[in-house]
Amino acid sequence: MLMVDIIRKKRDGNALSKEEIDFFINGYVKGEIPDYQVSALMMAVFFKGMNDEETHLLTDAMLHSGEVLDLSAISGFKVDKHSTGGVGDKTSLVLTPMVASLGVPVAKMSGRGLGHTGGTIDKLESFKGFSTSITNEQFINNVNTIGIAIMGQTKDLAPADKLLYALRDVTATVDNMSLIASSIMSKKLAAGADGIVLDVKSGSGAFMKTDEDAFELAKKMVSIGKQAGVRTMAVISDMDQPLGRNVGNAMEVTEAIDTLRGKGPEDLKELCLTLGSYMVYFAGKAGSTKEARSLLEDSLSSGKALDKLAQFIEAQGGSGEDVYHPENLPQAKEKTDLTADDDCYVSSIMSEEVGIASLLLGGGRRSKEDVIDLSVGIHLDKKVGDKCQKGETVATLYGNDKKKMEDAFERLRGAYSFSKDPVEAGKLIKGIVE
Amino acid sequence: MLMVDIIRKKRDGNALSKEEIDFFINGYVKGEIPDYQVSALMMAVFFKGMNDEETHLLTDAMLHSGEVLDLSAISGFKVDKHSTGGVGDKTSLVLTPMVASLGVPVAKMSGRGLGHTGGTIDKLESFKGFSTSITNEQFINNVNTIGIAIMGQTKDLAPADKLLYALRDVTATVDNMSLIASSIMSKKLAAGADGIVLDVKSGSGAFMKTDEDAFELAKKMVSIGKQAGVRTMAVISDMDQPLGRNVGNAMEVTEAIDTLRGKGPEDLKELCLTLGSYMVYFAGKAGSTKEARSLLEDSLSSGKALDKLAQFIEAQGGSGEDVYHPENLPQAKEKTDLTADDDCYVSSIMSEEVGIASLLLGGGRRSKEDVIDLSVGIHLDKKVGDKCQKGETVATLYGNDKKKMEDAFERLRGAYSFSKDPVEAGKLIKGIVE
Repeated sequence: MLMVDIIRKKRDGNALSKEEIDFFINGYVKGEIPDYQVSALMMAVFFKGMNDEETHLLTDAMLHSGEVLDLSAISGFKVDKHSTGGVGDKTSLVLTPMVASLGVPVAKMSGRGLGHTGGTIDKLESFKGFSTSITNEQFINNVNTIGIAIMGQTKDLAPADKLLYALRDVTATVDNMSLIASSIMSKKLAAGADGIVLDVKSGSGAFMKTDEDAFELAKKMVSIGKQAGVRTMAVISDMDQPLGRNVGNAMEVTEAIDTLRGKGPEDLKELCLTLGSYMVYFAGKAGSTKEARSLLEDSLSSGKALDKLAQFIEAQGGSGEDVYHPENLPQAKEKTDLTADDDCYVSSIMSEEVGIASLLLGGGRRSKEDVIDLSVGIHLDKKVGDKCQKGETVATLYGNDKKKMEDAFERLRGAYSFSKDPVEAGKLIKGIVE
Repeated sequence: MLMVDIIRKKRDGNALSKEEIDFFINGYVKGEIPDYQVSALMMAVFFKGMNDEETHLLTDAMLHSGEVLDLSAISGFKVDKHSTGGVGDKTSLVLTPMVASLGVPVAKMSGRGLGHTGGTIDKLESFKGFSTSITNEQFINNVNTIGIAIMGQTKDLAPADKLLYALRDVTATVDNMSLIASSIMSKKLAAGADGIVLDVKSGSGAFMKTDEDAFELAKKMVSIGKQAGVRTMAVISDMDQPLGRNVGNAMEVTEAIDTLRGKGPEDLKELCLTLGSYMVYFAGKAGSTKEARSLLEDSLSSGKALDKLAQFIEAQGGSGEDVYHPENLPQAKEKTDLTADDDCYVSSIMSEEVGIASLLLGGGRRSKEDVIDLSVGIHLDKKVGDKCQKGETVATLYGNDKKKMEDAFERLRGAYSFSKDPVEAGKLIKGIVE
């Protein structure tokens, strides 16, 4: 089998066979097939696409290119959750204790990654002493006893995807639904869950700019998951503006705690209940998503979900007390208000720009070596559709460095658009694919 | 400027600017832009094409990626000739002395290359003592005195094309008209001629399988040449069967000598007269191609063209006498006849298969290190449309090794198809683009 023939076959619009897909993925991981042939193939896929069968085969080949986690030592039905990424997305911080409080085992591998804020692990390190450097035994033991544990992703999951993604990133071959879907799903499936709940973001601040694209991606991923024998569904949710009101690490933790106390912003709460009800239902802890939602609401109002977070933080080296006293979390020293020039309505908030403002404050990483300032961030006092009076605070920046705050302020100001006439915000939940 | 943005721009169907094309060609030659980005761009070009402006710019960038020859020390209008390649194509051997005999300066760089037979230099080495390892001074002096010289291509002409072609070859991105045209023309233009006559082969044994493709390629190349200020035209000629009757190095030289004596096969003679008349006309040695053709016919019948070949061989170390005694050229020891099983007509001869038979006899190179047996080859006694009687010889193999001859025989047998009904051969000259 020759790689050039595989490239030509795809270039000419033909479907690749299992043997051909396995050949190129295995050869690439082993270093036997060079980057330049793979990038040419990726561009051919960009133009000619992959059918469902090929997409499943590609996912399967990448999934088995490295270790596949075995979570069988953990009793119960394990449900993983994945978001395609957005600004202000702290759903994992709310969801994991919430579903764990209902007996759904949460055994999560998380990363730090690059971005506008840190990853879930960075955010959790806002709790002093909290650590994800725990042994496999501790990890499994914690899930089996208190129902929740998170550890750093130390295993080499789906190495083919890592290689392929890095190559696609520099060859303008990222934007293909089959490649995006197989990239996400190969990693998720390698992490060994029995069920997967996907949050596909749609809008100006998301990777999928239109609902049409978001639905297409969701359908592909759900199809891949089911094909692999894993219960899978997707929620398509709005990312035309940031989720919730806080962007920044400790500030997002605080907002998550507020939500677990039943006091969080409506959009965040609603998204967590929607995703969470599927997780609980998939795990067999409720007979329907409706019943699951009702159980989750009870867990929030009774304080069970918040207590589960405290138990989890305590079990991994932090102080459970901090969960009840979020004022103990890192706090920035300075703040600046962005105010309204006139009476108006917020017509849009560019999520990406808010994210960059957070990065400029020091709340995110540009390169792996960057150290994050967990205390800084942005509070969105006004969101799309909100009325502002002249001089009223629209958003608040929290920082520790005047210069950085000035740069972030300019960026944040540019993120907001206003209108004289009332504006209605887009729907949060755009649809469900299952 | 980022290469990934250039790839994306082409991927999205936009035309690249001069700055972008220069950036990627220069960066690639310097090793600053990696193969994997260039191959992705080539695949995007395969799908989205290049307009005439881009094709000219790409040619120009490649042409100037290395040295551009300066032939100004040679007096007169220099016309180069290029063929897109076919089996049995010995036109250069006939054309060069023929036009030189009319005072058109022939200053040719030739290669050895890989293929079914050797390159022009290999063929010329059938003359014992002949050498193309001459100094620049000798080269220029020979052209200025006897009007003809050929030297090995020692200069690094259009190195970008060399790199790009090697990459395209292994990434299924060869088949794009703009890329093919700019590849050929960048090398030709770097060789410094004032005029270029192109022989674009069309048919089953050619790179261009259809007349439509051949005309498209011809138009692109002629446009590039004119844009560069070089007088350019193209003949589209048939390659549905080999040209002439001999395939193999010394055998092709013999056929060229026959043609210079006015005794060669009709198709070869006709093609040489057509190409040659444009070369003579471009060089200003005739007022029209019709007049040029008549001058060339005179040169053949008077023996002037043959004498020019003898003078040329003598000037580069061979014996001019051998031109008048081709029986002195290398001769194979054995021969085998392919005969007709029944009374029939030849309906087709697959050129590629005849070429492979020649290669199997030892007449060509598979890798650069292979040594060519100049004596071996194939004589096509019957060509398309010819009537064969049962038992009559259809083709003859000349070789030095029984085993090789057996393999070649099988291949040659498969190259021929026969019909009970009369068959008409395709037209030799399919058109002219100027």
